[in-house]
Amino acid sequence: MELYKQHQIRIYNSLTKSKQEFKPINDGNIGMYVCGPTVYSNVHLGNVRTFMSFDLIYRYLLHLGYKVRYVRNITDAGHLENDADEGEDRISKKARLEKIEPMEVVQQYTVDFHNVMSKFNCLPPNIEPTATGHIIEQIEIIKDILDKGLAYIVDGSVYFDVLKYNETAHYGVLSGRNIEDAIHNTRTLDGQSEKRNPQDFALWKKAKPEHIMRWPSPWSIGFPGWHLECTAMSTKYLGKQFDIHGGGMDLKFPHHECEIAQSKACFEKDPVNYWMHANMLTLNGQKMAKSTGNNILPNEIFTGENTILTKTFAPSVVRFFMLQAHYRSVLDFSGDALEAAEKGFFKLMEAVNNLSSIKAGKISTIDLNSWKDTCYNAMNDDFNSPILIAQLFEAVRFVNLLKLETETLTQEDLTHFIKLINSFIFEVLGLENNVKKDTSAQLSGVVEVLIKLRNDARANKNWALSDQIRDELIEKGIQLKDGKEDTTFTVN
Amino acid sequence: MELYKQHQIRIYNSLTKSKQEFKPINDGNIGMYVCGPTVYSNVHLGNVRTFMSFDLIYRYLLHLGYKVRYVRNITDAGHLENDADEGEDRISKKARLEKIEPMEVVQQYTVDFHNVMSKFNCLPPNIEPTATGHIIEQIEIIKDILDKGLAYIVDGSVYFDVLKYNETAHYGVLSGRNIEDAIHNTRTLDGQSEKRNPQDFALWKKAKPEHIMRWPSPWSIGFPGWHLECTAMSTKYLGKQFDIHGGGMDLKFPHHECEIAQSKACFEKDPVNYWMHANMLTLNGQKMAKSTGNNILPNEIFTGENTILTKTFAPSVVRFFMLQAHYRSVLDFSGDALEAAEKGFFKLMEAVNNLSSIKAGKISTIDLNSWKDTCYNAMNDDFNSPILIAQLFEAVRFVNLLKLETETLTQEDLTHFIKLINSFIFEVLGLENNVKKDTSAQLSGVVEVLIKLRNDARANKNWALSDQIRDELIEKGIQLKDGKEDTTFTVN
Repeated sequence: MELYKQHQIRIYNSLTKSKQEFKPINDGNIGMYVCGPTVYSNVHLGNVRTFMSFDLIYRYLLHLGYKVRYVRNITDAGHLENDADEGEDRISKKARLEKIEPMEVVQQYTVDFHNVMSKFNCLPPNIEPTATGHIIEQIEIIKDILDKGLAYIVDGSVYFDVLKYNETAHYGVLSGRNIEDAIHNTRTLDGQSEKRNPQDFALWKKAKPEHIMRWPSPWSIGFPGWHLECTAMSTKYLGKQFDIHGGGMDLKFPHHECEIAQSKACFEKDPVNYWMHANMLTLNGQKMAKSTGNNILPNEIFTGENTILTKTFAPSVVRFFMLQAHYRSVLDFSGDALEAAEKGFFKLMEAVNNLSSIKAGKISTIDLNSWKDTCYNAMNDDFNSPILIAQLFEAVRFVNLLKLETETLTQEDLTHFIKLINSFIFEVLGLENNVKKDTSAQLSGVVEVLIKLRNDARANKNWALSDQIRDELIEKGIQLKDGKEDTTFTVN
Repeated sequence: MELYKQHQIRIYNSLTKSKQEFKPINDGNIGMYVCGPTVYSNVHLGNVRTFMSFDLIYRYLLHLGYKVRYVRNITDAGHLENDADEGEDRISKKARLEKIEPMEVVQQYTVDFHNVMSKFNCLPPNIEPTATGHIIEQIEIIKDILDKGLAYIVDGSVYFDVLKYNETAHYGVLSGRNIEDAIHNTRTLDGQSEKRNPQDFALWKKAKPEHIMRWPSPWSIGFPGWHLECTAMSTKYLGKQFDIHGGGMDLKFPHHECEIAQSKACFEKDPVNYWMHANMLTLNGQKMAKSTGNNILPNEIFTGENTILTKTFAPSVVRFFMLQAHYRSVLDFSGDALEAAEKGFFKLMEAVNNLSSIKAGKISTIDLNSWKDTCYNAMNDDFNSPILIAQLFEAVRFVNLLKLETETLTQEDLTHFIKLINSFIFEVLGLENNVKKDTSAQLSGVVEVLIKLRNDARANKNWALSDQIRDELIEKGIQLKDGKEDTTFTVN
């Protein structure tokens, strides 16, 4: 029997602002969409945390035996500098500044993003669609929304008519913003904008002559609005209604609000059953920002090329650190917190390495089922990884007692215990037991000790001992070479 | 001064069947397009060799200081089972067999491809466009070719009219095939095909009801022909005429021939100045084929999970092996050949590791310039990596003589020599000096030898020696623990 039949997950739904029992639309199958990066700069650590949070969620759903179709997009066009549909396209701007083709910008930062995700052991999604790969699908949705009278054309651009939409639906259902208040509080249009109302948003923008990324459409040669791509791609691959939509907290408004409006306008359905939002990462208690220098890139953590940390940390240690906080809590990143996490990580891995040396006993003196239930209950309760990790440290305590044979487990229970620990640590949390200490320096040191002992033996004309040391080293794969001045060695 | 101003490359051009002096269209800038994989299965080793060949070429052009825009596509739609525009789309078929969405197939094998390329240290291209990301561009080209009367529509599909094209141009200019002979020799159409002539090829295919990957077009809901994507993407990112187009030998006909025809029909220009084709890889003297089992996947070489090889090989060793053959020669892959390459690789890396211990002399007794010229001449002569590698072994000989001080180099020459060796090995050949022997087993072995000596000392009541061994080990980072039965150790 699939595990999911035994486990009822509860998810905090940003739409209802409450934890709800999770019921997928199709039993045993889950459609999940997560907003991916806009690839115009190196992925920052806050984004990494968001993607890692959804990686944890994806991994747990897979662990429970669900068939998950996980779609995470790459935004390679249409994301303007600000949310008011003004300013340059972020990728076009970077391309202009670096004097390269926009798709070179896209490639450079897509490669960086994939490398970083892979280092953090985040599983790739099942589909990774791009905005430029779905221009036709976006145009089809715009046609449909125009047909329904919920968008209007101004000089080759198409805008979504939020006020008209709000007459029959509720714009603000996710973010809780009230459209009337918003209209009341926003500045009047300065005459520069083509929009009827500041709340309206672009579905299609006519390209200015200097705008390089452009495609033909029924309205103009131009490019799609940023919000539209996610509607086009999520519904193409997951259907007009699907289970889970995730993203960073900052995307709730306007991005996700606009997605809901577009989908309802076009397909006349609420697109998503469970909206999930991952919380922020701060650095030393403050917002990360390039401008203030309070900023660190993922690779800079591994290489040590940064001014924030005094030592390097392995990706799995950073991952462990991040999963020690719940995805909906703000998390502060600091050297001290990472060092504490590293100690915990090594403690956990040491326990994993010790599992194989535990001997089974005649009876089980540990209540394995109770421990296991606590672990699953934590994850079933809105993916509470910090509680799971606390339970894993409880398991470390068990491992130590089992090694001392103060406690015992039957062979059957021991096998089950080992399987559970491995599942939680490697499969669900996605940690890797590969942070190895390089021992080549120690090897040289120890061989030196022996060379010295052998020199002493030779000085004392103890040829037997001298030969014994040489021969035993050969057996262990070390070949001594006596030179004019000193003795060196090679490793076979 | 950029290096390329001192070095005249000669490239074997498949179009003229001769080596030609290479002159880029824009001085100092190079546009290079290479046909990438169709992502419906794990990338096979023959494809890896092709991409590695162009990686060598790309790296050498970068080394010479050229600004290269290297475009390599991902074919994620339109590649049918056979070249006669018949059969299923390869990706759609795989999706149908595995009961998943075609874009899940695309994602799975794109991720595999990128992982394999990264393991072999192949640099990512500057742009990596997909066929599905350029449907609009392909439709625009078809419209143009139809306008020029060089294509025709049958029941929603569009075919390129090869005979009509051949009236004013030469279809067969690359492959050397004669269209009249081809018509004479091919079977007559069996009435199943919509084509006027078997040589014609699809620009757009109307989708059958079961075909999942489909887009609207002026002619039908369908999908583009395979050859068209490369024309659309190469010209979009490199212009209507560009410098280098590469691919595997098997793509020369019909794929590249059709690309030339499409470009000339649409833009009235020869699209490519230098056509380059990489040769085949055989396995134990025979064609690789899944059906016969004479087949090995890249990852199977690294993990040892295969029935072809008796040991594992590191990616850099395989890369070194492949670059020991010229890209236009057939290369046979076998365990013996890899073992020989591995020995050579370690010899080279040992020399690299020894470079830092060479002391400068008062005069230079080695003719460094002559050696350097031979290296560059090899690469300038159609990227002859085997000759470059032979010269690197000559450099290994130099390193050994320099270590013995039988030969000497002045400090200036020595610095230059070290820089050149590093450039050729790491920058140009793209090898990695990271194939480390894991010495943890040797460390345990050597510590055991010392524990034994210490036990002997204790048995002889030689407490001084026993304490000395313990204390010196602590100094070297090894902590002994005397247990009831035996002595164990931990590494700090």
